[in-house]
Amino acid sequence: MGYPGAPELHIDKAIALRNIRAMSARAASAGVSLRPHFKTHHSRAVGEWFRASGVTSITVSSFEMASYFAEAGWTDILVAFTASPGDVEAIRRLSSRVRLGILAERPEAAVCIEGLVDSPVDLWLEIDCGSGRTGIPWNDTEAISSFVRGTSGLHRLGFRGILTHAGDSYSVRGPHEVMEVHKRTLERMAAARGATLSAGAAGCLASCGDTPTCSLADSFPGIDEIRPGNFVFYDLMQVLIGSCRIGDVAARVSCTVAAVYPDRIVVRCGAVHLSKESVVMLGKPTYGLVVRPGALPEGPGTYASLFRLSQEHGVASAPPEFAADLRPGERLEVIPVHSCLTCWQFPVYHCGKAVLPKMRYGE
Amino acid sequence: MGYPGAPELHIDKAIALRNIRAMSARAASAGVSLRPHFKTHHSRAVGEWFRASGVTSITVSSFEMASYFAEAGWTDILVAFTASPGDVEAIRRLSSRVRLGILAERPEAAVCIEGLVDSPVDLWLEIDCGSGRTGIPWNDTEAISSFVRGTSGLHRLGFRGILTHAGDSYSVRGPHEVMEVHKRTLERMAAARGATLSAGAAGCLASCGDTPTCSLADSFPGIDEIRPGNFVFYDLMQVLIGSCRIGDVAARVSCTVAAVYPDRIVVRCGAVHLSKESVVMLGKPTYGLVVRPGALPEGPGTYASLFRLSQEHGVASAPPEFAADLRPGERLEVIPVHSCLTCWQFPVYHCGKAVLPKMRYGE
Repeated sequence: MGYPGAPELHIDKAIALRNIRAMSARAASAGVSLRPHFKTHHSRAVGEWFRASGVTSITVSSFEMASYFAEAGWTDILVAFTASPGDVEAIRRLSSRVRLGILAERPEAAVCIEGLVDSPVDLWLEIDCGSGRTGIPWNDTEAISSFVRGTSGLHRLGFRGILTHAGDSYSVRGPHEVMEVHKRTLERMAAARGATLSAGAAGCLASCGDTPTCSLADSFPGIDEIRPGNFVFYDLMQVLIGSCRIGDVAARVSCTVAAVYPDRIVVRCGAVHLSKESVVMLGKPTYGLVVRPGALPEGPGTYASLFRLSQEHGVASAPPEFAADLRPGERLEVIPVHSCLTCWQFPVYHCGKAVLPKMRYGE
Repeated sequence: MGYPGAPELHIDKAIALRNIRAMSARAASAGVSLRPHFKTHHSRAVGEWFRASGVTSITVSSFEMASYFAEAGWTDILVAFTASPGDVEAIRRLSSRVRLGILAERPEAAVCIEGLVDSPVDLWLEIDCGSGRTGIPWNDTEAISSFVRGTSGLHRLGFRGILTHAGDSYSVRGPHEVMEVHKRTLERMAAARGATLSAGAAGCLASCGDTPTCSLADSFPGIDEIRPGNFVFYDLMQVLIGSCRIGDVAARVSCTVAAVYPDRIVVRCGAVHLSKESVVMLGKPTYGLVVRPGALPEGPGTYASLFRLSQEHGVASAPPEFAADLRPGERLEVIPVHSCLTCWQFPVYHCGKAVLPKMRYGE
């Protein structure tokens, strides 16, 4: 933020590259395409690290983000957010220059868009495999069939397949539970794909993607494409889920000590820097772990836990060994709970001596 | 955000002006100065509404924000965040052009700053009256005396008084509990002021400020200045605390319906728009109330409750009467939980047909 003492978002490029290579290798070995979600980093500079690793197709969470990455030279972009009538102009514009994929779950929406675009658009049907956010429930065969039949006569919108986000993998803990979500998701996607084929779909790809299952599963039977995003930076939540180790977290917030007390420390790093995402650790809501620059939280005494955030302040319970020689003004680092949201809060990323550009809505 | 269907932050100017006038009248009637906290709106345009109401001195939460408002013509600015060594250059620059107040609680910090500035700076000692964030505990007479004595010989930094933020008023519910916090804060500030005078302070102003107590108390015995900020827009949290009525909330997020299901609706309005601040309503975490444009949530059937936020999605439980005739793409509004954090997420405010500028870190 260009101000001495102001919090900054630091990316460890070596770790991020290792995470990208590991996920690319995992996808290749499992025989699925990797279409990473770019909402985590939303940075054209970080996007290039993926391109160098052989990635050619990407996922984004809004048409604004699709435009940003189209400008950056990406030519195969899936917008993984239900398309609305207000998006038609963006769909027209983007589909004329890139291979564009959109999400729908109501045939009327697809028919409406068909009438207003000139170029081909890939149409994906969103399936809800149990996460309860968006999509047609996986076992609602009637609605799935109705979508396939209702869109089969379209010319510019071509039915490409089904897509799901197993968001329920974020609320489980440990590889065993993640793999249960994975197994269930595969079964449900197979059933939904069966319903599309029975309804007359000529073909139906299957796309799934969330960082926990994609980080832990070795195979994706019946799946053609995976779309994880968070893995590029990982975060504390993913460590607790079991998707990665703490040493795999590539994003940290650098900040300064404001005050030191016998029972706690206060850092200039609040909700406007970290977001208010929390996880429960040792029974308490935790907004991030505070460590010395470059250090890992390895055992008691090596970190402080942020238990309260206000707009600009973070308050952390700090064991005496950690706080003993801390001085106001000293730099510390916060390992964030949810890197997608924390990264969103910053205007740029710092990476060694480089400053990396990123998008912000409204710019 | 300049994109059809994208969430926008809307301000109802008439309500905001009414809130400003009510707080100004309350301060005048109680015989205290009003130094409103501008971190809630952080907008030079909204700042002018305060100026028109007679406000001449303001509070901000960072030196970056102080610079922004100094550029906008404000000449009496208190930075209510513990000053750090890294802030010295900003203190030098700002104190040469405005009346600048800074916060400290260690005499060494004040002495260090004294040696590096050329212009007068108002020095405020932060007192912790029980909120447990920053400041010297109100009953630590020794530390208070030591601060007063340790800074009494300074020439450019002039001890101005004591300051507190009764952050504990945010965790109570109802006017009775808020007034208990208020009474306790007044008693503790009186004790702390006594300690400064006993230690030889020539004079000692007392500054306090949080929206709940300032909205509900009629008198502030022993207090010279109040610094509430949130009241300009209020929010759902303040309604639940009892600081205001729902009709006093001046900030709303306009967004579109993404999907409608039998048990819920999904809006394009997620954590990057609202922040992940939540309150507990009917036993459940709630991230905002969804209403029709301009409507108030008055009884069952008139609103939906956001119970889950992901990066761009908001999921709300919606009663059938509310969801019955909703269509994807339709505009709705979200009454935010915490307007300070929600406003922070947006690049500009919409106010009728006007677009109001606001600050963002890094710009």
